[in-house]
Amino acid sequence: MERGLYVNHLEAQGARDTKEVPHMPNPTAAMLVIGDEILSGRTRDSNMHHLAQEFTRHGIDLREVRMVSDDRAAIVAAVNALRHGFDHVVTSGGIGPTHDDITAPCVAEAFGVPISVREDARAILQAHYDRSGTEMNEARLRMARIPDGATLIDNPISAAPGFSLGNVHVMAGVPQIFEAMVASLLSTLVGGAPLLSQTLRVQRGEGMVAEPLGALAEEFSDLQFGSYPFQKDGAFGTNVVVRGTDAGRLDAAMTRLNALFGD
Amino acid sequence: MERGLYVNHLEAQGARDTKEVPHMPNPTAAMLVIGDEILSGRTRDSNMHHLAQEFTRHGIDLREVRMVSDDRAAIVAAVNALRHGFDHVVTSGGIGPTHDDITAPCVAEAFGVPISVREDARAILQAHYDRSGTEMNEARLRMARIPDGATLIDNPISAAPGFSLGNVHVMAGVPQIFEAMVASLLSTLVGGAPLLSQTLRVQRGEGMVAEPLGALAEEFSDLQFGSYPFQKDGAFGTNVVVRGTDAGRLDAAMTRLNALFGD
Repeated sequence: MERGLYVNHLEAQGARDTKEVPHMPNPTAAMLVIGDEILSGRTRDSNMHHLAQEFTRHGIDLREVRMVSDDRAAIVAAVNALRHGFDHVVTSGGIGPTHDDITAPCVAEAFGVPISVREDARAILQAHYDRSGTEMNEARLRMARIPDGATLIDNPISAAPGFSLGNVHVMAGVPQIFEAMVASLLSTLVGGAPLLSQTLRVQRGEGMVAEPLGALAEEFSDLQFGSYPFQKDGAFGTNVVVRGTDAGRLDAAMTRLNALFGD
Repeated sequence: MERGLYVNHLEAQGARDTKEVPHMPNPTAAMLVIGDEILSGRTRDSNMHHLAQEFTRHGIDLREVRMVSDDRAAIVAAVNALRHGFDHVVTSGGIGPTHDDITAPCVAEAFGVPISVREDARAILQAHYDRSGTEMNEARLRMARIPDGATLIDNPISAAPGFSLGNVHVMAGVPQIFEAMVASLLSTLVGGAPLLSQTLRVQRGEGMVAEPLGALAEEFSDLQFGSYPFQKDGAFGTNVVVRGTDAGRLDAAMTRLNALFGD
C-alpha cells in the first residue's frame, strides 16, 4: 500500500498566541466584496483570500462571502442580511472619492442612521493633503463622510479612514490598504481558538478514500474532514484535511487516518 | 497637462462573434462557490474570476457571487435565493464522491425534487472506470446521483458529470473541470451583447478626477463608469473604465473623457 505523508500546520501559516477559550464557540463572520470590476472579470479579488487566512488564524469563522456590484439596493440588502446573520461583517471596496464609491452611504442606509462629513475624519484627510501639498476638494471630502455612531479604522497608506458601525467593518478595496485595515481591526476584535488543521496526503483517488473517511468523519463529529483530489505524474491522489480547534482530537484523528491510509 | 493613454479592449480578452440583440437586456447570473477550503483560506478560488470573464465575453451579466461552506442549510438557502433572483445560477464545488460532497442533494432539496442514481450518469462513470481499470464502488456511485428533471453537463476530464436543473448549473470545483464544464454550458446558453469596455489611463489621483467624471457619468447614464486608483513611481494615477454594450456610445464617452483628462 502507498505511504501517506504527514503535514502539520495551522490552516493559515503562522500561529498567533491566543489564549484558549474552552467551550466558547468562535465568533462568526461574513465578507461583502463590492465592485463592478470584480464581477466583470476586470480585476481578480485578492482581499477575500487574505481575510480568510487572517480570520482563521485569529479564531474567527468566516462563514459566507458575497460579491455585489456598485448598486445601492444590492449593497444595502447584502449589508442587512449579513449583519443580522453573523457576529462580524467586513466589507471591501467603494469608499474612494468618485461617484461609484457608495459604500458608506449604503451602510448608513442599512442601519437607518444619517451620514455626514465628520470633523475627525476631515482633519485626518486635511493633514494628509497638507503634507503632500494636495488640495482638499469636494470629491476628496466625500471620504470624510462617516455614518453617525461609527468608529474610524486607521488607514496608514492613504489616510482616508475606514469605519466600524455596529458589527460592520467598512474597508478599502485596494489590497495594500485593505490588508493594513484588517491588521488594525484584528487588534481590536476578540478572537476564539485558532482553527488548526492537519493534512494526510494519500496516494489514492477520492473514490477509494471516500467510504472509510465518511465513517471516520461521523465518529469524530467535532472535527471537519475535507478531501481534495489532486493528480500528479498521471496518478490520482487525495489530500485529506482535518480541521478543528482541539490539538489532541486532531492528533487522535490523524492516528486513525494514518492507520487507514498511511501505509 | 498629462497625456492620457487609450486602451481599447473587450472587458475580457477575445471577442466572441455574437449577433447583436438591440434593446434586449442581457441575461443576468449569479455564482455560488461551495467549500470549507475556500472560506478557511486553505484554497484560493479561481473559478469565480474565470466565470466572470467568460460571462462578460458571452454577454451574460454576473451580478452576484456567494461563497458558503459545506453546510446543507447554507447551500439550500443560497440556491433558492439566487435562482429566484437571476436568470442563471452557476455552482462550483461539492460534487465529488466523499461525505462532504453534498451539493447535488442540496440542489434537489432546494427544488423539492427527488434525487437518485441515474442510469445515463452511471453508464458514463462505468465506461470511464472500465477504461482505466478502476472499480465502481458505493462512493463513486454517489457521483451518478442526479436530481429528477436535470440535464447532464459533460465532464471531459474525469467523467463525473455536472447537471443543469432549471436555471441552476451545477459544476465541479476543480478548476480544470470547472472550466471545461463552463465551456460546455456556454455553448448551450443564449448570451446577449458582450460587455465592451475602454480604459483611459490618467496621470492624476482619483480625487482630481472624481468631480468631472461624476458629471460625465450622469450625462452618459446608459454606460457604467469606474475609476481605479494606481500608484506608480511614487505618483498617483487613475484608470477610468467605461463599460457598455454600444460601441458608438463608448467612443462618444471616450472622446469627452479625453478632452477632460487626456491632454
